[in-house]
Amino acid sequence: MATERIAIIGGAGELGLGLALRWAKAGEDIVIGSRDAAKAQEAAARVGDAVPAAKIAGLDNAAAAAGARIVVLAVPFSAQAGILKSIKGALKNAILVDASVPLAATIGGRPTRMLGVWEGSAAQQAAGLVPGVPVVSAFHNLSAEMLHDFSLQLDCDILICGDDAAAKERVSALVKLIPGLRPLDAGPLEMSRIVESMTALMISLNRRYKTHHSGIRITGIPPQ
Amino acid sequence: MATERIAIIGGAGELGLGLALRWAKAGEDIVIGSRDAAKAQEAAARVGDAVPAAKIAGLDNAAAAAGARIVVLAVPFSAQAGILKSIKGALKNAILVDASVPLAATIGGRPTRMLGVWEGSAAQQAAGLVPGVPVVSAFHNLSAEMLHDFSLQLDCDILICGDDAAAKERVSALVKLIPGLRPLDAGPLEMSRIVESMTALMISLNRRYKTHHSGIRITGIPPQ
Repeated sequence: MATERIAIIGGAGELGLGLALRWAKAGEDIVIGSRDAAKAQEAAARVGDAVPAAKIAGLDNAAAAAGARIVVLAVPFSAQAGILKSIKGALKNAILVDASVPLAATIGGRPTRMLGVWEGSAAQQAAGLVPGVPVVSAFHNLSAEMLHDFSLQLDCDILICGDDAAAKERVSALVKLIPGLRPLDAGPLEMSRIVESMTALMISLNRRYKTHHSGIRITGIPPQ
Repeated sequence: MATERIAIIGGAGELGLGLALRWAKAGEDIVIGSRDAAKAQEAAARVGDAVPAAKIAGLDNAAAAAGARIVVLAVPFSAQAGILKSIKGALKNAILVDASVPLAATIGGRPTRMLGVWEGSAAQQAAGLVPGVPVVSAFHNLSAEMLHDFSLQLDCDILICGDDAAAKERVSALVKLIPGLRPLDAGPLEMSRIVESMTALMISLNRRYKTHHSGIRITGIPPQ
């Protein structure tokens, strides 16, 4: 399983780079995708500096997606549809992991408010754009800052939504590779609208309590 | 502060009765409101059985609200507007605490889906119906079953939304009276739409993980 390549589209961004760092540290084979291949290579070099043994490369988005079985989309919501259209042809055998959050900040609004997405959520919009590709939504409520700092202990549940049980299992396994994260199956893809909006709540809590590190834990879940 | 009477409208229901039990145990002066005064008295008797020293009474909704400084609305969303109109006159000096969740189940839909409320959330609808009354939303993501069983250790954050800082402080103090609960200020009342929808998420998690006890903890909040 650890030999399946993971492409992180938007891997030069805060969340994408954070996931790349943590998965590279866990020994996964990672390729960072960016619109600009040079930026992707730069981000890959940063991962290589932090994790000397990293299996890491940087390519433009379409090339990055082409060789991967897991494609993580970690891009601003405003870029989601355009980028998905540009990499669609490369997703035939892939699982698409969408981490997009339609914050109102995307269009100049407040980061504690959400846009209404016609399909119900960013993840459902993604699924509509790549019919036939299993779409799983995850990694919305995670502090990117904490992913970047290996000295910090993560303490967060990752709520996973999707309609394909096997794809959710695969993503759960990827979550477990990062110490301090626990995957939880939050239900079908339509539940993603709630999980996505919880990001706006985390931003509100971060502001009020002067932190960048808030996360979510679900209590009362029996040991699996 | 402990001498301010708390009215729990819908106090014969699962959540309302659970809060009544826990606050009565903490020594608060509680009055349970119901449409049917006999039902309210029955619920009050149950609290008296569980907490022999309880300061507890049961009255019809309007009478219950009339004598209270804190009025907690713990009724099904479909009953919220009607009941608010019927007790509105009694709320002049009160803080209204709304715990309503507009689950689609209210109108025969799924409990993992939400209704769209024109104002944005049940709490905002409530605020529109009682202009001038400070409205705080809280207690959405709490297992009623756990409130009822004193042998169970609660383990849950209560996300509080509202536009009146003093009212939020007062409700925070009430949360702290229940061991295992931590109040967190989630921001203005408009954030309630997210907190309310998290109830549907908890229901989805409860089903999937075969429990009735899930709750939410926010991690990474510096000690207050």
